[in-house]
This record gives sequence, structure tokens and C-alpha cells, in this order.
Amino acid sequence: MASLENLPLRENLRGRIPYGAPQLEVPVALNVNENTHSLSEGVLTDIVSRVASALLRINRYPDREFYSLREALAKYLGNELQIENIWAANGSNEVLQQIFMAFGGPGRKALSFRPTYSMYSLLAQSTDTQYLEVDRRERYELDVDLVTSAIKDAKPDIVIICSPNNPTGTPVSLELIEAAYAATDGILVVDEAYAEFALNRESSISLLPGRERLIVSRTMSKAFAFAGARLGYLAADPAICDAMRLVRLPYHLSALTQAAAEGALAHSAELLKAVDEIREQRDRIYVDLQDLGLDPFRSDSNFVLFGGLNDSAAAFEFLLAKGILVRDVGIAGTLRVTAGTVAETTAFLDAIGEYLADN
Amino acid sequence: MASLENLPLRENLRGRIPYGAPQLEVPVALNVNENTHSLSEGVLTDIVSRVASALLRINRYPDREFYSLREALAKYLGNELQIENIWAANGSNEVLQQIFMAFGGPGRKALSFRPTYSMYSLLAQSTDTQYLEVDRRERYELDVDLVTSAIKDAKPDIVIICSPNNPTGTPVSLELIEAAYAATDGILVVDEAYAEFALNRESSISLLPGRERLIVSRTMSKAFAFAGARLGYLAADPAICDAMRLVRLPYHLSALTQAAAEGALAHSAELLKAVDEIREQRDRIYVDLQDLGLDPFRSDSNFVLFGGLNDSAAAFEFLLAKGILVRDVGIAGTLRVTAGTVAETTAFLDAIGEYLADN
Repeated sequence: MASLENLPLRENLRGRIPYGAPQLEVPVALNVNENTHSLSEGVLTDIVSRVASALLRINRYPDREFYSLREALAKYLGNELQIENIWAANGSNEVLQQIFMAFGGPGRKALSFRPTYSMYSLLAQSTDTQYLEVDRRERYELDVDLVTSAIKDAKPDIVIICSPNNPTGTPVSLELIEAAYAATDGILVVDEAYAEFALNRESSISLLPGRERLIVSRTMSKAFAFAGARLGYLAADPAICDAMRLVRLPYHLSALTQAAAEGALAHSAELLKAVDEIREQRDRIYVDLQDLGLDPFRSDSNFVLFGGLNDSAAAFEFLLAKGILVRDVGIAGTLRVTAGTVAETTAFLDAIGEYLADN
Repeated sequence: MASLENLPLRENLRGRIPYGAPQLEVPVALNVNENTHSLSEGVLTDIVSRVASALLRINRYPDREFYSLREALAKYLGNELQIENIWAANGSNEVLQQIFMAFGGPGRKALSFRPTYSMYSLLAQSTDTQYLEVDRRERYELDVDLVTSAIKDAKPDIVIICSPNNPTGTPVSLELIEAAYAATDGILVVDEAYAEFALNRESSISLLPGRERLIVSRTMSKAFAFAGARLGYLAADPAICDAMRLVRLPYHLSALTQAAAEGALAHSAELLKAVDEIREQRDRIYVDLQDLGLDPFRSDSNFVLFGGLNDSAAAFEFLLAKGILVRDVGIAGTLRVTAGTVAETTAFLDAIGEYLADN
């Protein structure tokens, strides 16, 4: 067996390690912002039946333009969106990769606001796009002045604003998105992976008309409890979808993915009920952690980042020993916890309370 | 709606059009080298049951390392391959894209032999890898001298040899692969998408021991009649798989894809029986086209490229009017036809005979 050092690997990959949280089997996994509610029997039955039907023609290539799925996504998003406004890929990571491939690349620059989703920098690196991150304000907040100044200074080809932000949960206002768009000549990506969990559910999708450089990316992983099925998508001007078509791999979305995603979308009303429950648990975590003397950050997502720990590594290990996995996102003194079911959330809150009582 | 010209698209994408054969609904589709045999009820039932089981945990991210699928692929390939020798992605296009991302890129060079699979040049372009193509010999054949001279001249970082070659069907010997490997310091990719259809089924997989820069890529689209499920894979030194891990998107293979592919692999013996039938039809096409006075090229694939047409566009349209779709691969005076079922092959041979009688 050779080692990586012996292979003619690209220079900018040397010494890198693969992205990814540890995949541990634990009773209470609250580490990767999954929706911990599994699908109901009715939804499962419908999806299985659609997948079985797709398998009858699985020897043929899938619909390369996935029209039927795009129609279902357009209907779900509303806002008078049409099939032509929708694009999708295997997870929002692939949607973002396609955006970097179309609008980034050598000699081009992307900008985001630190701390934010760590895949942005990795996608920039793997597409040879220069990547800049500007620090957020206190408590990870953004404001118009910070964002527009950073854009005017850096003149990026791609600006990415994660709304609400991962890993901090920070809400972002539509006024800020409007100002960011006005400040850039490049592409503005609003990553709304967690948008369904926001308090007021304002989406930048309402800003699309007349803004052809605006892209709103979404995922079915969170609100639709569909992380295992890998379906990310975007809403934008039809010309953006044409650009995606230039960089996508032909037949990138399998017939199984298309069928399964259409099945889940057919039950969006039922699935979004679980989102309401998760929002309640998110707010409960926020309030209870404050009551415990910890320092949670305000969150519009299905997770809460919290500080106030003397030794976050010790707290992490204490929770893990109790079968509860949370995430160290690399911000000193903090941990991030996903809002789970009532029982999972209770297990976490009890355990962190116990940890604080002991330490 | 904006147009692509108004968007800040990367310079090297301007004026490009998306890759892809027309997706027409016709009774006899022999245009994209699909396996026209659909899966048996027994195989379908098993796959549906595995997919249903995967859906029970679809709210969770899939196994990022897809160990179980890799184990099944290793077992299928034999040759004492282990899990660590196997990598997979959403179609062999994505496998190749990951190879370009890991070993190509700005300042790097890829080499292949014209005419060959058109995605190679597109993948090079989208990863900013310089791409060179050297003409094949008469009748699209390769020989050691041609290949090793081209490698020594170009000093490419990646050499791709499609074996058997698409779109010409041309067989490639293991001696040629050994010589190509010895001639390069870069990565040698042998694209064996159609390997199961070859006469002697020699695979470059047998050459892997001691050759850590050799990658053999495969697909389930053809032999496994699984084009709709999108599963490509590779066999190589474990260090190559480590390199893929640096450029893959996390969780790139959905839980549904993993489950479905494992289901098909569990029935590989049954599925490969259809491959035998397809090889018979491929050989029948070759012989019958010769008998009709046309000029088929020797093929180790599930398709035949043939010349000898005065007006290939007219022949294409004649066939299409009869509900038979073949492929114009852009080689003047030729068409490419996929070997279908007995009935589909008969329909094609009858129709082309009729065309020749009339013209």
C-alpha cells in the first residue's frame, strides 16, 4: 500500500484531512443537526411505492432535467416560482459546489462571515476559488454596515450568507440580504438550509424578482427529515439554472432520489408539523440553558450554540459518557446541540444540568 | 428573466452548451448504451425491501464511508480486493470528477486518445485541467508505441484509457495498460465502464498490485442495468481512496443509493446472465451489419459503431421515424447502436436493412 505522500496529489490538498464529524452510534445523537423525528408510516409507504415504481425503469438513465421533482419543489416554495426557477443536486453541498464551479474558480474570490458553515472554505479550495472570511460582530451577529463594507472592500465574485447561520444559529434579516445584493456585482448565495426553523419564516425567496444574481439554496435534510436521501436545491432566476446545467454532471440526480424526494414533498404539511415541535425544543433549550447559567446564542435553526462552560471538552465527554453526542464546532468554550425530540432534549438538558452541578 | 450572458459566469464556460443526448420517448431506445433488460421481479423485490429498510433511518445522514457497499463491491470484483481498495460515487462521471479534482487542476494536464468518451474533456475543463487528445490509429485502435510516445511527449498528470473504448467499442489489451503505466509518473485511469461485455473479460484490476498510481473505474449502469440508480466505483490502492476522501462532498452517496446498489450486487450472478445475452446481440449486430455491406468496428462493449453509410443523418432519421433511436456520436459517416434485447436488435437490423434497400 502506498501512502498519500507518494501520490501525485494536487499541492493544495497536501496535508489536508477529510471533512466530517465522527459517526458514532449513540442513543442520543444531537451532533449533526439532523431532524431526529423519523418519517411516519404513511409517508414511508408512499415513498416506498414511488421508489418501487422508479425501479421498474432503473436500467434507463433518469430524467436529466428532473422536471417532475422541480415542479414539486416549486410548488412547495410557492412565491409563484416555476420549474425554470428550481435546480437540485445531491445535497446542498453539491448545489454549492456547482455554484462555485460556475461562478468561482481560479482568479475569482468568495466571501463569507466567520464563523460559518465550514464547507464554504472547502468548496472554495477544491474549486481553486480564493476564499475570504470577515469576522462577525459580537455574538456572531451581522449588520448592514459590516456586510456591505466587506463586500465593497473585497469585491468578491460570490458572497455567501448562511441564514440562519450555521454553527451559531444567528438569524439574518431580509433588509441585510437586500443591502448585500445591492453592494455586490457578483453572485449572492443565501444558504437557507435551516430556514424552516426560523421564527418568522421570512425567506430571501421573496427577494428573487428582479435580482438575477441572487441564489437561495435549501435542503430537504433538515425540515423534511431527509438527510439520508441527499437532496439540496435552489431557487433563482432561470439563467442561474442554465449556468448550473453547464457544470452539473449529466444525470447527477438518480431516479431513486427523484422519486423519494417527490414522495416526501407530497407530505410537506405533515412533515412541517415536526418542524414546529423541533422549534419548541430549540426554544426550550435556549431558556433552560440560560436558567442553568450558561450562555446560549439566539437561534433560528434546529440547534443551539452555547458558551459559558469552563471546560467544554470535559462537558462534551461527560455528555458522551451518558450516550449523548453533541458537537464541538471549534469555537473555544462552546458546544452545539441539535434540538431533538422531547425525550432527547430532556436527556440532554438533564445531563448538562448534572454536569454543571458536579463541576 | 436574465440571460446567461448577463451573469458573471466563468470565462471558460461562456458559450458552452450542456452535455447530453436528447431524451426522447421512443419504442426502441438504443442511443445511450443502457442495458435494455429490466430487473427481474425477484431482484426488484429484494431492492425495494432494502430501500424500505434504509428509509426507516432516512432522517439521519448516511454512512459517509459506505463500508457495507464497498464490501459488496470488493466481493463482486474479487482479485483479493478489500474494502480499502474501493471507492464509489454517483455514477462513474462523479468518480472521474473526483479523480480530476484530486490529481488534476490548474497547471496540470490530462491525456486521452481521440475519439473517446466526451466527458473527459468536460471534466478537465470544469476542473481547469489542461486536456490533450492524441488521435488513435486506423480503426480507432491503440498500440503500445502510440500510447507510450504520447505519454512521454505530453508528460500528463492523468492518463485516461477507456477500455473498451466509448464510442468506438475498441478492445484494449492488458499489455497496453502495463506499458502505459510504466511510461507515466502520473495517475493512469482505466475506464472500464463496459468491461463486463468484453470477450475475454480481462480486467486491469489484475494489474493493481504494486501499481499505486493505477485506478480502474467501473459503473453499475451497464452490466447491472442500473443507469437510473447512479453508481460508479473504482478499484485502486487504498491511498487513492484516501485522496478521493479529500475531494468528495461529505455524505455524497445517499442511503437509498447504498441500499439499492447492495441489493443489485447481491444478485450479480443473475444480472450477468443478461450481459451474456447482450454480448450475443452485439456480435449479431456486428456480423449482420457486415453482411449488409456496412462497416462495423470491432467492439468489446454493449454497442457497435458502424460506418459505410453514405448519409448517416438520413439513416438516423429513417430509424427514428420507425421508433428506433440510435446515436450520432459526431464521427462523420457513422452511427452507434446499443445492443438491446433480441426483439430490439431485430427491429434495428430490419430497419437498417430496409433503409439500405431504399437508398
